[in-house]
Amino acid sequence: MKNNSPSTSRRSLRLHIYEIIFESDTPAGKYFDVGLFIFILVSIIVVLFESVESYRTSYQETFRTIEWILTCIFLIEYILRLYCVRKPLHYALSFYGIIDLLAIMPSFLAFFITAGQSLIVIRALRLLRIFRIFKLGSFMAQGNVIMESINQSKGKIAVFLYFIVILVLIIGSMMYVIEGGKNQDFDSIPTSIYWAIVTLTTVGYGDITPVTNIGKFMSAVVMILGYAVIAVPTGIVSASMINQGRKINGQACPHCSKEGHDNDASYCKFCGGEL
Amino acid sequence: MKNNSPSTSRRSLRLHIYEIIFESDTPAGKYFDVGLFIFILVSIIVVLFESVESYRTSYQETFRTIEWILTCIFLIEYILRLYCVRKPLHYALSFYGIIDLLAIMPSFLAFFITAGQSLIVIRALRLLRIFRIFKLGSFMAQGNVIMESINQSKGKIAVFLYFIVILVLIIGSMMYVIEGGKNQDFDSIPTSIYWAIVTLTTVGYGDITPVTNIGKFMSAVVMILGYAVIAVPTGIVSASMINQGRKINGQACPHCSKEGHDNDASYCKFCGGEL
Amino acid sequence: MKNNSPSTSRRSLRLHIYEIIFESDTPAGKYFDVGLFIFILVSIIVVLFESVESYRTSYQETFRTIEWILTCIFLIEYILRLYCVRKPLHYALSFYGIIDLLAIMPSFLAFFITAGQSLIVIRALRLLRIFRIFKLGSFMAQGNVIMESINQSKGKIAVFLYFIVILVLIIGSMMYVIEGGKNQDFDSIPTSIYWAIVTLTTVGYGDITPVTNIGKFMSAVVMILGYAVIAVPTGIVSASMINQGRKINGQACPHCSKEGHDNDASYCKFCGGEL
Amino acid sequence: MKNNSPSTSRRSLRLHIYEIIFESDTPAGKYFDVGLFIFILVSIIVVLFESVESYRTSYQETFRTIEWILTCIFLIEYILRLYCVRKPLHYALSFYGIIDLLAIMPSFLAFFITAGQSLIVIRALRLLRIFRIFKLGSFMAQGNVIMESINQSKGKIAVFLYFIVILVLIIGSMMYVIEGGKNQDFDSIPTSIYWAIVTLTTVGYGDITPVTNIGKFMSAVVMILGYAVIAVPTGIVSASMINQGRKINGQACPHCSKEGHDNDASYCKFCGGEL
Repeated sequence: MKNNSPSTSRRSLRLHIYEIIFESDTPAGKYFDVGLFIFILVSIIVVLFESVESYRTSYQETFRTIEWILTCIFLIEYILRLYCVRKPLHYALSFYGIIDLLAIMPSFLAFFITAGQSLIVIRALRLLRIFRIFKLGSFMAQGNVIMESINQSKGKIAVFLYFIVILVLIIGSMMYVIEGGKNQDFDSIPTSIYWAIVTLTTVGYGDITPVTNIGKFMSAVVMILGYAVIAVPTGIVSASMINQGRKINGQACPHCSKEGHDNDASYCKFCGGEL
Repeated sequence: MKNNSPSTSRRSLRLHIYEIIFESDTPAGKYFDVGLFIFILVSIIVVLFESVESYRTSYQETFRTIEWILTCIFLIEYILRLYCVRKPLHYALSFYGIIDLLAIMPSFLAFFITAGQSLIVIRALRLLRIFRIFKLGSFMAQGNVIMESINQSKGKIAVFLYFIVILVLIIGSMMYVIEGGKNQDFDSIPTSIYWAIVTLTTVGYGDITPVTNIGKFMSAVVMILGYAVIAVPTGIVSASMINQGRKINGQACPHCSKEGHDNDASYCKFCGGEL
Repeated sequence: MKNNSPSTSRRSLRLHIYEIIFESDTPAGKYFDVGLFIFILVSIIVVLFESVESYRTSYQETFRTIEWILTCIFLIEYILRLYCVRKPLHYALSFYGIIDLLAIMPSFLAFFITAGQSLIVIRALRLLRIFRIFKLGSFMAQGNVIMESINQSKGKIAVFLYFIVILVLIIGSMMYVIEGGKNQDFDSIPTSIYWAIVTLTTVGYGDITPVTNIGKFMSAVVMILGYAVIAVPTGIVSASMINQGRKINGQACPHCSKEGHDNDASYCKFCGGEL
Repeated sequence: MKNNSPSTSRRSLRLHIYEIIFESDTPAGKYFDVGLFIFILVSIIVVLFESVESYRTSYQETFRTIEWILTCIFLIEYILRLYCVRKPLHYALSFYGIIDLLAIMPSFLAFFITAGQSLIVIRALRLLRIFRIFKLGSFMAQGNVIMESINQSKGKIAVFLYFIVILVLIIGSMMYVIEGGKNQDFDSIPTSIYWAIVTLTTVGYGDITPVTNIGKFMSAVVMILGYAVIAVPTGIVSASMINQGRKINGQACPHCSKEGHDNDASYCKFCGGEL
């Protein structure tokens, strides 16, 4: 990626900016990433505090000012990213490119759309900006192991979730029939399904609870089911993680070509040959 | 399964319908499966919306019309299935055959049984129809791994559930004795058992909560127990999934063509031949 | 155990009773076990129904009669067990011997102690009688695998529970300080500890909830902690179950003395030798 | 550690005290540890009971007396520890040294700071003293396995918690937008985030529950997400524990005396020597 002989100073500047913004192996790049992280954090904290009635009335002006300063910083950053990257369109349409743009837009949209209510919806997206921080640091490797495990088991988890949806549809319908007339809480099948999800996932708000004996029995069955069924996703991911761990550590022995060596191994554990 | 030289055109039609309805490797078969999936989905959504008071009063007629159209489609489909299958009785008595029939019946039963309330009970069964969709697509393989794991560990899970039932009986009885007189919520042993299940499974509705000090202590013990006990089904399924994973990676033996060898196997465990 | 040439008919009778009551490999023994199971079940159901106000007032007499008949049956069974067993004292002091005795006592104690309230406490113990059923059937093997896994990991689980107790003491005290004055729910440290257990185990009754901002933040931290900490007992038992599974299937190969063969293996997977 | 030829009797006394207080392989050392454990337990129980209104009014004097006696014992113990240890400053600044000091301070601080309210805050720290007991007994080994597993997987758990925080920020903001105007419970983003944590971790207090249809749908999604996501920390710790188990069974290499070999290893992975 590095080009040590730029023909013009403009290209040199571009490369320099690229190294600062997109890479983090130079001191300047590191300072930039940390600074950006802090700005995003401040931006989120401001949104959080602004949503609290008492703070909004007292510090409205301060919050607005900070927001605008941060929006300008993020805008400049976005323009610089577009400027220094080799393929601007590719970046603009990438996952982080879209998030970067969405993070700036809400503040500007406030000019055209006056309804404050709908504005907040978009503002919440600004929180997604925090994902960029994952580009920082050594967490990536650890995150990748998790991601790879989830990726490997996503098919099984999809089937599991599909079963859960069907289960919840049937349980919800049955509870609507059982509790329907006697309990105002179970006033429709969708509400009953909502209750079934609350119960099966062991969340248990308690805003909707059965009152009939058969309803209580049914919900007891659902609870025990949920208690046992949680073993399925757990088993899927555990099995995947163990496989993952075994694979990641493994390189094949050049002598006996067996795999399954630990990361810190210098010699093959099967034939004693040097790795 | 495929018969490329049918003697009569009737038999050819039958086979053609069979391929469309029961198999999904022809384009027509795929379209049929997807169409059926959409019809079932629409049917479920209509039942869901019809159960909501406000929608029922406004769109009663629309819901009824859609329901009748879908019932007719499912009826035709059921008859075609009976017609084209080689052993109609075998199909009619199979798991999916029964579900297919149960999915059609509620709408017709409405003619004979006028009590709307009891009718809804049967209508809920229509939701089971969604299971048929599992015949679709590549999810089957993933689902089979899960099913096999659950199947392998079903004995252990049964023992576990039996222990849970006994545990819950004893805890419920004890809490009835402890809280009985002082707390209206614990008015009978069945109710106390319901509370014990709500607590042990960490659902925690909060509709029944202990008020005495000893009752609170007891329930704290039950909670920690439930928190630790959930490890048992999880451990069972995890162990089974990992075993499953080890087997699935194995290849067939070139001598006896049996499968299910471990990854580190050098010789077939059934015939002793080299792999 | 079987003695086919008893010297006297009394000893023969004794042996015959022993075979019926304690063993289950004769048809008579099986009928006895199943019968006993049904009697215990009926006995539990009667206790359950009797505790419900409405049933108690209506069927008091019926419940009492059934209870007395069952108590007599269990008494006769207990005497027969003492009579036919070789070491009566050994049986009487064994786990099941004590439970068998405790199951009969409550009904008789009612003669001497008139206070109904305290009587119910002992009656609840009758439910423990259900444990005897575990002597039945093929579930034993499956149950043993679970038991062995729990047994192996009981040291680790004890340390885990000890940590949980300390954690809960500290969290409870901190929440008492934080919420103490402002929230009537947190009126003492024991109550705060009860709340901490309810929250950490993800039960979440909602009978005690934080009202201050710092209290809500603290409880959010406790919840996420509880969500992550549940991985520890699960990991302990999973690891133990997998080890257990590997061991149980294993027998050493007579040729290469390697272990780790599957239960259905006829040949060693490492050297191909017959097992 | 043991010095069998002390030159002066003072040094001999010091060593003797050291053996009693810091080590537990002499009978005196064991009695000391058990005694200390009981004193700490009594101290905690007194704090617990004192916080209960009714006990405080009745037994204020008794509680105070016990507290002062225990504070004196712990003070003497602390001074003796400082006296007998070779590097007093090293001990004073160690984890247990700081906890030992913090355990004594609250009672003395009561002289200078009169505000009772702020005093209780420090008193709660006394509960931390219980950690010292871990120096006792054979639990250490079991605890180390758990600690090592958690240590190994702390990077992955950190990434997981970071994801959870981001997830909860976004879900909280979205629910604030959805429920904001219609539901008084969701009056700010921080409160919505608190709700998101309560729901995602399956705690489910029920103090804040959605009322709109879209809000209920969203929370159903969050619940199922939380139900599936719990598999991640569980998988991480399970995989780590199983790895740990594999290592622990290994013997030391006879050539380089390094440990940590897999069970199926034939050669040392560090030096290549035969095991």
